[in-house]
Amino acid sequence: MCPHALIPYKPKNPKTRLSSVLEPEEREKLASAMLEDVLQLMREMCCMPVVVATELFENEVVQITVADADLNQTLNEILPDTKRDLLIIMADLPLADAASIKRVLATDKDMAIVPGRGGGTNVIYLREPWKFRVNYYGASFLKHLQIAEDARFSVEVIDSFRLHTDIDEPEDLVELLIHGTGRSRACLGDLGFVLSDEKGRVGVQRKR
Amino acid sequence: MCPHALIPYKPKNPKTRLSSVLEPEEREKLASAMLEDVLQLMREMCCMPVVVATELFENEVVQITVADADLNQTLNEILPDTKRDLLIIMADLPLADAASIKRVLATDKDMAIVPGRGGGTNVIYLREPWKFRVNYYGASFLKHLQIAEDARFSVEVIDSFRLHTDIDEPEDLVELLIHGTGRSRACLGDLGFVLSDEKGRVGVQRKR
Repeated sequence: MCPHALIPYKPKNPKTRLSSVLEPEEREKLASAMLEDVLQLMREMCCMPVVVATELFENEVVQITVADADLNQTLNEILPDTKRDLLIIMADLPLADAASIKRVLATDKDMAIVPGRGGGTNVIYLREPWKFRVNYYGASFLKHLQIAEDARFSVEVIDSFRLHTDIDEPEDLVELLIHGTGRSRACLGDLGFVLSDEKGRVGVQRKR
Repeated sequence: MCPHALIPYKPKNPKTRLSSVLEPEEREKLASAMLEDVLQLMREMCCMPVVVATELFENEVVQITVADADLNQTLNEILPDTKRDLLIIMADLPLADAASIKRVLATDKDMAIVPGRGGGTNVIYLREPWKFRVNYYGASFLKHLQIAEDARFSVEVIDSFRLHTDIDEPEDLVELLIHGTGRSRACLGDLGFVLSDEKGRVGVQRKR
C-alpha cells in the first residue's frame, strides 16, 4: 500500500527560466523548498520518496544520482525491476496537496497521469511499472499516453490544477503566492515577493 | 435541479492578449467557438444558459446586454433576485467537461469556486446567490473567498485544471491544442495552429 515515489530533482542551477527574477542561489533555495514540500507530502501520503538528482545534495532522503540528460534512461532502467506500484512526481509542484495525490493513488485504472502546463507530465502513477517506460521532455504527456496505449494500459487523466501547476516561469509565482501554503510559499515571501495588481492583471513584484 | 448559468462574454474585439498571434476577426471566431463549447456543455449538464454580453450577437441563446465596465454591477443587480442555485461561468473555458462541472455542481458547501490562472475566478456556483455579490477583475479569486467568508458561506475550491485554464495568452493555446476536443480545438486547427517542440519546450506555431 506504500508505493515508492521517484522524484526527479536538480539541486544545482535549477529553474533557469526564473533567472529574470531570481539570482542563482535564490533559485536553488526555492527549488529546495519545493522539494521539501513534495517530500513532506509524500511522507504524509505513506509514499517512500527516492530523489533522482543530478548530483548529491544535503538531505537525508534516499538519493540516486544521475546526469540530467540520462533521466529517461535511468528511470527506464529502474522500471523493469519495480514489481509493485510506483509514483513518479516532479519536485516543482508546491501546490500539490493530500486531496490531489489521493485522487491519483485512488485510480482504478492501470495508470493515472497528470499533465503539466505546456504539455509536460507532472505525475505518473503505475500499477505495473515493469510494463512501462518514460519519455520526459517536450510534449511528454502525449508521448506517455501513447506508451500507455501501446502497453494496453487503461488510463485516468487526473484533472487537478494543483498538480498541473509546475513552477517554471515568473508568472507561475502568482499561483504559488495565491494557492501555496508550505515552505515554498514562505520562501517566496522571504524573498520579498508580493502580488501586484496592474490594470486588472495580477502579477508579482518584489520588495527588497 | 437545473440552475441558470450566467456566462459573461465579449463578442467584439475579444481576447486582446491574443492579438500577437490572431487577427481581430480570428479572435472573434475563436471566442465564439469557445462560447459554443461552454453553451453545449451547459445544456448537457441541464443548466439554462444566459449570456451576459457586451453587445447583442447572433445566437438564439438568452442574452443580457451590458457595458463591459458594468459587469460586476449588472451581476450584483441580478443576484439578490435569484432565489435558487446559480452558476456563473466564463465563456473562455473550452477545456471544461462534464466531469469537472459535475464536481462543481455536486458540492455540499454553500459555494463552489474554481480559480482561474493568474488569480481570476472562472466558475462560481452558489446555492444562495441572493446573499452573495461578485467582484471580478484582478485577483478576484481572493476577493470572492473574502466575500464568501463575510457571508458566512462554507466554500469548496474545486481543483480542476480544465476549469482553471482560461484561454487568454498565446501559450494557453498549447493547452487547447493538447487537451481540447470541441469546436474551439477545431477552430484553432482550422486557423493553422499546430504544436511545436523547440528544445524540449512545447509551443504553438502556425502553418498558413
